[in-house]
Amino acid sequence: MPPSRIIFLVCDGMADRPMKEHGNKTPLEAAKKPNMDALAAAGVTGIMDVIAPGVRPGSDTAHLALLGYDPYKVYTGRGPYEAAGVGLKLRPGDIAFRGNWATVDAKGRVTDRRAGRIKDGTKALAKALDDIDIDGVHVTLKAATEHRTVLVLHGKGISCQVTDTDPHKENLVAGCKAIDSSPAAKKTCKVLNDFTKLSMKVLKDHPVNQKRIKDGQAPANIVLVRGAGMTPEMPPLAQAWGWKPIAIVGVALIRGICTLAGMDVPFVKGATGGTDTDMLAKAKAAIKGLDKHDFVFMNIKAPDIGGHDGNFDLKRSSIERIDEAVGYIKENLPGDTAFVITADHATPVPIKNHAADPVPLLMFGEGVRTDNVTTFSEKAVAQGGLGRLRGRDMMPIIQDWLDRAEKFGA
Amino acid sequence: MPPSRIIFLVCDGMADRPMKEHGNKTPLEAAKKPNMDALAAAGVTGIMDVIAPGVRPGSDTAHLALLGYDPYKVYTGRGPYEAAGVGLKLRPGDIAFRGNWATVDAKGRVTDRRAGRIKDGTKALAKALDDIDIDGVHVTLKAATEHRTVLVLHGKGISCQVTDTDPHKENLVAGCKAIDSSPAAKKTCKVLNDFTKLSMKVLKDHPVNQKRIKDGQAPANIVLVRGAGMTPEMPPLAQAWGWKPIAIVGVALIRGICTLAGMDVPFVKGATGGTDTDMLAKAKAAIKGLDKHDFVFMNIKAPDIGGHDGNFDLKRSSIERIDEAVGYIKENLPGDTAFVITADHATPVPIKNHAADPVPLLMFGEGVRTDNVTTFSEKAVAQGGLGRLRGRDMMPIIQDWLDRAEKFGA
Repeated sequence: MPPSRIIFLVCDGMADRPMKEHGNKTPLEAAKKPNMDALAAAGVTGIMDVIAPGVRPGSDTAHLALLGYDPYKVYTGRGPYEAAGVGLKLRPGDIAFRGNWATVDAKGRVTDRRAGRIKDGTKALAKALDDIDIDGVHVTLKAATEHRTVLVLHGKGISCQVTDTDPHKENLVAGCKAIDSSPAAKKTCKVLNDFTKLSMKVLKDHPVNQKRIKDGQAPANIVLVRGAGMTPEMPPLAQAWGWKPIAIVGVALIRGICTLAGMDVPFVKGATGGTDTDMLAKAKAAIKGLDKHDFVFMNIKAPDIGGHDGNFDLKRSSIERIDEAVGYIKENLPGDTAFVITADHATPVPIKNHAADPVPLLMFGEGVRTDNVTTFSEKAVAQGGLGRLRGRDMMPIIQDWLDRAEKFGA
Repeated sequence: MPPSRIIFLVCDGMADRPMKEHGNKTPLEAAKKPNMDALAAAGVTGIMDVIAPGVRPGSDTAHLALLGYDPYKVYTGRGPYEAAGVGLKLRPGDIAFRGNWATVDAKGRVTDRRAGRIKDGTKALAKALDDIDIDGVHVTLKAATEHRTVLVLHGKGISCQVTDTDPHKENLVAGCKAIDSSPAAKKTCKVLNDFTKLSMKVLKDHPVNQKRIKDGQAPANIVLVRGAGMTPEMPPLAQAWGWKPIAIVGVALIRGICTLAGMDVPFVKGATGGTDTDMLAKAKAAIKGLDKHDFVFMNIKAPDIGGHDGNFDLKRSSIERIDEAVGYIKENLPGDTAFVITADHATPVPIKNHAADPVPLLMFGEGVRTDNVTTFSEKAVAQGGLGRLRGRDMMPIIQDWLDRAEKFGA
């Protein structure tokens, strides 16, 4: 009998490159990971170009591909996924941005892009600018963690073909500019530039900032935005593939993608999206998720953070902690449940950024054709029985494996 | 010298999944197949997604891909291939259906979808409804094996975007409905519904049925159709690739595809398209086919039947019988002849239906780069020198191998 449900674990940024100073090993090769190795030995393995060979994925575009969407069609920018990730309801066509509370001086120069890493009072600040209309466009502003915000524009004739107001370093506030010549881009720029001015006017003497100035802290006296994206039409996984899906995911961006994909996205206590996340709590939530769902998607962010930091040991130890969580899942995995482990992209320690090097992939469960691979590592699985796949192949392959695929022809 | 001609053997539905209750083997792994193993050892091997990873092929769409056609362009339904398979001449644009002689009661309820598995008299029944005109559309009806028929509509302004009149179970006769809003679909529905009524009127008191009723047999008093498809423009293999092609094929659907691909499709005595087929007769016909043809295509249906029946041993023994036929070809293969063995799809015993799991592939003949694979099995060839290909790659690869390909560029 083929499996009837699945746990699909994405270890964020886990793939890497061998480093001379670490015995020509990658963090995955250096890590003690008896559980992943056992699953590789009992399952089938391969390598995967999550977007396409040589194309460096973002975590967002990678996850879209792994969930069966064409990122070239649905992805225009990070904004909508961040906005959905902090709980905003978006409608197709809405233009969304990531934003920062920042500090600007009297000459319009940004002196601190994070307003002294402001933590308190941001909800009150957001309230002063939320739920307003500018030129017939409705503006939603929501405070996210610390200095972060999300901004959503809703209305007719708007576009994501606009530049950031965030100068990305200490510099003059950037005026939003249209990227194409459409009236919609022009209109969106005007709305955004008006909003920026309004934010300065409203925030200048806001009680939260009066207190911050009194306390010698940088005031949050402007909202800067970046990453404009149009909310896509994304058929939910239930409709596209017939799943009852749940996502055990900490980090906001991936929570947003899973939300827009129509998944249940509960908060798991202790799941932070950081290196301090409670991985065992996530593993337990995944097993529990099987009670009412047949597609349990997991993302563990920690290895990506070690990669971005260029910290080999942090990345290696993150992988070892993931392996403990994998062990819990392995011990508690019902016989009718498939288990897939992969990564969304490489974040090589020597690169400190995402890279397109293929990611390792393992599929464990009834019906897979095993291979001779006994170790879950970048090199070992390149000899695996799956060969070299692409991220967008995953969902059709899972559907086929679980005997859910429709036949094309007779 | 590269080979100058080729035998291309498709073992229908041969690929499978390992089963615990059979020592974690597939039928192909469990079968004694010294000849296929010897060819794998002497040739080059790989795995193939016949349509694309995770896409479950029909036998029809799979064969189209293997013969170099794009099934997404030429395939709209099974009807035309079945009709061509029983010898009807079709023109591009003709709408064809598979049909059944069935039994309907006075209330319009289908009581037997196969009219008591009628065998005799069907030619006479077909004659009473063949070669007629309805609303300017010419109708051809031909009796096929046992309770099966094919129906072809020829005329202007007709469409395959129509539903079946066959209710697919004991139920009221289904009225044909248009799937899209085109006038052609509407017109086709009217023709088909008029034909259905006419079939009831004409067949009711037909002498064949008078006798059946007298003998206590279910009368064949209605024609039910399904699988509407439009006959595509398919450039014949001679024109597309320069072959003089012949097909040694038993089953009607594949005979039809090969006919529409412009191949000679002789009847081989003893080749039934069933598990009782005379495989050695087909092997002899293939070798003989090399006299006047340079592309000898073979399909052996038997393993697919074992898969659909969920019968591991039947499938294993079918493969062993194929191996004997492969032995004959191997012994009699001229030195200038290439030999390819693959499958059109998996029909896993635990699934009892087609699956998209990749199929094994071997290429034997002068000029192939050999690999270390010595067994022809799903797992073994995943380590082969060809890697993971797609069905539509086959024809260009064969052209290149046989030094027939044109250069792209200078």
